[in-house]
Amino acid sequence: MYPGGWNNLTPEMLPLAVQAAMAAIEKICPEARNLLLIPENHTRNTFYLSNVAQLARIFNMAGLNVRIGSINPEIKENTLIDLPNGDSVMLEPVIRNKTRLGLKNFDPCTILLNNDLSAGIPGILEDLHEQYLLPPLHAGWCVRRKSTHFANYEEVTKRFGKLIGIDPWLINPMFSQCGEVNFAEGEGMECLTTNVDALLTKIRRKYKEFGIHEKPFVIVKADNGTYGMGIMTVRDVKDLEVLNRKTRNKMSVVKDGQEVNQVIIQEGVQTNERINDAVAEPVVYMMDRYVVGGFYRVHAERGIDENLNAPGASFVPLAFEQSAHTPQPGMKPGASAPNRFYMYGVIARLAMLAGSYELEATDPDAEVYE
Amino acid sequence: MYPGGWNNLTPEMLPLAVQAAMAAIEKICPEARNLLLIPENHTRNTFYLSNVAQLARIFNMAGLNVRIGSINPEIKENTLIDLPNGDSVMLEPVIRNKTRLGLKNFDPCTILLNNDLSAGIPGILEDLHEQYLLPPLHAGWCVRRKSTHFANYEEVTKRFGKLIGIDPWLINPMFSQCGEVNFAEGEGMECLTTNVDALLTKIRRKYKEFGIHEKPFVIVKADNGTYGMGIMTVRDVKDLEVLNRKTRNKMSVVKDGQEVNQVIIQEGVQTNERINDAVAEPVVYMMDRYVVGGFYRVHAERGIDENLNAPGASFVPLAFEQSAHTPQPGMKPGASAPNRFYMYGVIARLAMLAGSYELEATDPDAEVYE
Repeated sequence: MYPGGWNNLTPEMLPLAVQAAMAAIEKICPEARNLLLIPENHTRNTFYLSNVAQLARIFNMAGLNVRIGSINPEIKENTLIDLPNGDSVMLEPVIRNKTRLGLKNFDPCTILLNNDLSAGIPGILEDLHEQYLLPPLHAGWCVRRKSTHFANYEEVTKRFGKLIGIDPWLINPMFSQCGEVNFAEGEGMECLTTNVDALLTKIRRKYKEFGIHEKPFVIVKADNGTYGMGIMTVRDVKDLEVLNRKTRNKMSVVKDGQEVNQVIIQEGVQTNERINDAVAEPVVYMMDRYVVGGFYRVHAERGIDENLNAPGASFVPLAFEQSAHTPQPGMKPGASAPNRFYMYGVIARLAMLAGSYELEATDPDAEVYE
Repeated sequence: MYPGGWNNLTPEMLPLAVQAAMAAIEKICPEARNLLLIPENHTRNTFYLSNVAQLARIFNMAGLNVRIGSINPEIKENTLIDLPNGDSVMLEPVIRNKTRLGLKNFDPCTILLNNDLSAGIPGILEDLHEQYLLPPLHAGWCVRRKSTHFANYEEVTKRFGKLIGIDPWLINPMFSQCGEVNFAEGEGMECLTTNVDALLTKIRRKYKEFGIHEKPFVIVKADNGTYGMGIMTVRDVKDLEVLNRKTRNKMSVVKDGQEVNQVIIQEGVQTNERINDAVAEPVVYMMDRYVVGGFYRVHAERGIDENLNAPGASFVPLAFEQSAHTPQPGMKPGASAPNRFYMYGVIARLAMLAGSYELEATDPDAEVYE
């Protein structure tokens, strides 16, 4: 919902993103000329700001006037920030009146949020009923839960699995959740232990059914967190008993100092793709309902059962060689790179569909038809 | 409206075409699964059939079941035709019932015409009110007139010129027309002479205004014809007096043996792009409202004031290196290849807009609001 890393896509993918942006904007705001992009409050993370610059460029190519409005209270005047590639981004302080949000001499029709609101919904973004806010406020990570998303994704995969005649488990890792866990204080560990144990048992059963000879594992993470912090691989329930201080600390703090309370436990899936021997996982980018590209997240120092979305110098994004639009008909799903990229794109589209069901169900202003 | 040459686009452009096809089909037939493609009646022109195969591939990649239905009376059973690149196309005879057109065991929601209907509207395509016919029958070349298109294009360029502050002449060649000309019999030549003379005078005036030191010329062609037949460059009105037998014959027959009656006279525009010294003109491809790519039509044996869309072995299509979606901001319109391609795409979009006004105005079933 708040994609970073647009700067990792290849120039070849850019036209697809531009075309998708045209289709997206046309639908919601056909007369729209002005788009306000609201980034995270980072002012020194130039990698992130390169992403913002690329996103602005895409919507600019789609024919819009794009400006970047910061809701960071520290940005009190226009601030030009140089980027490593020689570009720069101008962060402008937003101006709010009673009904609209804008910049000095800039009244946007659409406001595109690239700020995931994990610290809560700032008042300055509330009650903007005249402008399109994309995504809506209830998509923010202060409201959103991973478990809600995966519950919706599960429903989608059940229907899709039935449609094409596959066990939905093949595209839907199992999960469960615990409502109250505090790693620092060691509270709620019983719920976690029970759920991890149950999930490992369910995975073992599935592995047996499908003849998979691997050791099951689960991933424990914050149900509301982002940024890959506080993510733990658990291969045995006993691992939980001997959690050391360091791991507890890592698990107890997520972005913006929020304490972990709600926890999601997901079936671990081995990362079997490799780029130059390093474990690599595909990341697919969508705009509106279109798959526009993707890349591999590569982490040479991580194993096949670990989270790759982790800080570290060896994080190497590598663009897909080809678009996910043009599979090779007649060849098996994973047999060729184009078909593999296409397959990833299908999963991404199912996840997008799940996301839209999720937002529909959590919309506080939803109209109820009885 | 009936694009040939999709096979000339680069593989890099294909994803854009697929994405545009998704957007186009979704709009008219969101539940559509079956698309019937109706090609020209050619069965031996494998270059043309490669175009059909590529078009079918694009819609197939967009998620549709695509089959090719021939309205050629000679196609009485399924006919597999091998293509030079190793692919093949299956032409199937269409089956018509009272209200719908389809194939054996294939009932399409949408029928995409790649047959330009220059020989007239076949009865088998009439009264299909339950299915979407794209483009509609009145877009066929038996109904369409170039002069009608250019009259609509002129209106669009006037508004666009006003919007961006340029003389619309810069993007709109002047034209006039003659209703009754028969080159073979030498009838209607007076109208032609008068119009050519008047147009050459108008061009001379514009050249003077803009300081252009070139010799004006006009292009004379059938107002309803296609396929680049019957096209003549006239540099001086005296050229018309001494038309030789060969030229007269060439001008008097267009596609499918139809005699030229209506003639359009267009301001000639020099072709100043060159690929390896050969004169090259850009051809832009659109699908729905999206520019998806383009190529250069190159004809080494033709001059800068001649029609390049002519038969001959030296016809070399060369794909644009880059998409027309990603201009370089800050650089002049023609200064870089990306900006030139983008500019061509803008002209193509204006022409598409003109085409939609044209079809709206010529729709025989149009609802009239008084």
